Amino acid sequence: MQCDRCDSAAVEWIRYSGEHLCRGHFVEFVERRAKRELHAQVDLQGGERIAVGMSGGKDSSATASLLADFLGRRRDIELIGITIDEGIASYRPAGIQRAKALCGRLGIEHRILAYEDTAGHTMDEVVARDPEAIPCSYCGPFRRQALNRAAREVEADYVATGLNLDDTAQSILMNVARGDVEKLARLGPHESRQPGLVPRIQPLRMIPEKEVYLYALLQGIEFHDATCPYADRAQRGRFREMLNRLEEDSPGTRHAIVRGYDQMRPLLQEAYPPATLNACARCGEPTVHAVCKACELRDRIEKFAPDAPEPA
Amino acid sequence: MQCDRCDSAAVEWIRYSGEHLCRGHFVEFVERRAKRELHAQVDLQGGERIAVGMSGGKDSSATASLLADFLGRRRDIELIGITIDEGIASYRPAGIQRAKALCGRLGIEHRILAYEDTAGHTMDEVVARDPEAIPCSYCGPFRRQALNRAAREVEADYVATGLNLDDTAQSILMNVARGDVEKLARLGPHESRQPGLVPRIQPLRMIPEKEVYLYALLQGIEFHDATCPYADRAQRGRFREMLNRLEEDSPGTRHAIVRGYDQMRPLLQEAYPPATLNACARCGEPTVHAVCKACELRDRIEKFAPDAPEPA
Repeated sequence: MQCDRCDSAAVEWIRYSGEHLCRGHFVEFVERRAKRELHAQVDLQGGERIAVGMSGGKDSSATASLLADFLGRRRDIELIGITIDEGIASYRPAGIQRAKALCGRLGIEHRILAYEDTAGHTMDEVVARDPEAIPCSYCGPFRRQALNRAAREVEADYVATGLNLDDTAQSILMNVARGDVEKLARLGPHESRQPGLVPRIQPLRMIPEKEVYLYALLQGIEFHDATCPYADRAQRGRFREMLNRLEEDSPGTRHAIVRGYDQMRPLLQEAYPPATLNACARCGEPTVHAVCKACELRDRIEKFAPDAPEPA
Repeated sequence: MQCDRCDSAAVEWIRYSGEHLCRGHFVEFVERRAKRELHAQVDLQGGERIAVGMSGGKDSSATASLLADFLGRRRDIELIGITIDEGIASYRPAGIQRAKALCGRLGIEHRILAYEDTAGHTMDEVVARDPEAIPCSYCGPFRRQALNRAAREVEADYVATGLNLDDTAQSILMNVARGDVEKLARLGPHESRQPGLVPRIQPLRMIPEKEVYLYALLQGIEFHDATCPYADRAQRGRFREMLNRLEEDSPGTRHAIVRGYDQMRPLLQEAYPPATLNACARCGEPTVHAVCKACELRDRIEKFAPDAPEPA
């Protein structure tokens, strides 16, 4: 099959647009949209520092590589890679190694912050202590807080994440299904700056997961190609399946969901403006409550016995 | 299993609330919510005429029965049953017969309006002429227009439909998945009155389909228990499946979807106010375009040969 834009052989068929693209045109297709998203989300004046949350997976590695590429010529903008070490022995070390290698190659600083030093427990410990819980219900708040803290500590103006189109559309559907309108109003990217919170940017927000994967492969970006061992217990899996089936039936569904949401977003944000944040009474991190979600979960896990339960 | 509200035997377990209910308390549970919805949707002053769109199925039959029950003592409010005859020989006659019988028992007038007299074609003809199309894509606009016309012709102030909670949540999800924000803003019930359009009310909007079914059975309401032979080709089936699975995983999902939507609705309605309507240049029915969707589809079907295609 031939590329629809030149005479080279196609490497990918973009089902929702009908186009076949060769390697060069596919890479250009991804980069153009990521650049457009970046500029739509943030107006870089020079002098900014951007932290990139790097798990070592395809999405965040592609994000770091794309940002280094876009901003490489701008000496006045600094990138810093940050990896959150959740403490998952069978999974995280390989990701850290890839993130570190990629930062080395891109010539950017790399820092690691571990749950042990923020939440006080590794995820392996959390799962052993509270085996009934969905691990992500701990890991989500812990990661959000750790990444924000690390980004703030390096005085970053923004924190970029690898959130792709599939993730974005899933989050929208999940919050519609939960009727959580306030959460819908607060999904990233963040335009407003709140004290203590580093605004998130998401350059891959309109790029399908599969295209990010292919982009990373074609560009030789080092990444850790694995799934978190605890992920299959997450509710998100159900929405991933649903969305894949809808996209299969009707190509372009993910884009339609995000574009429709983007029309509603300003209305929701006006009706549900950002809540005033307090410093958590326990850890000082920003929260809408008296004690933040991460501290609340930390309390919860400490109620469980420190040893894993005996196998039944 | 015993009723949670009295000593009688339970007939139903309401999974999203955890309650077991006996026949009497179940019936009361359905009626109370339908009455609350009716009053939330419309402020009846006396002197109104309400048309009920009656397919003869469980939802619209329960709606007619409930409205007759609620309004029976009010001599100043009139109900009229209207059945739209789509012209589906294997399906519709039994529905018409049930709707007619129910109207007879409730002591309300019953009228029939056929697609043959509005769209100029039966659905059986449409499907034979354009077998590739999804039949609902014709039937939806034809039915909306026919029901509105019939309601207007009897000078109804409102037209009540049997839309239940499952239907409502499905419609919300479908329009989110299509990114159709304007359509989301315009889902019923309708608060504003537009020239030529009879506002729709939906008393069963918060009652799950399964409960409507059981209510109709327990109350001995005559209804036609069948599915349209063309329905399996509709995209809605996919959303029905998805929603059933979500509700199974997480009881209360349908309610959450509709409640979340109801929070967004006023914001959407403000941003997307009702479009100014024209009289269709062809048939005079209200439309936002020059020619209405039903006339457009009527043109389309007339381009196909009048005979069914030869079997391959």
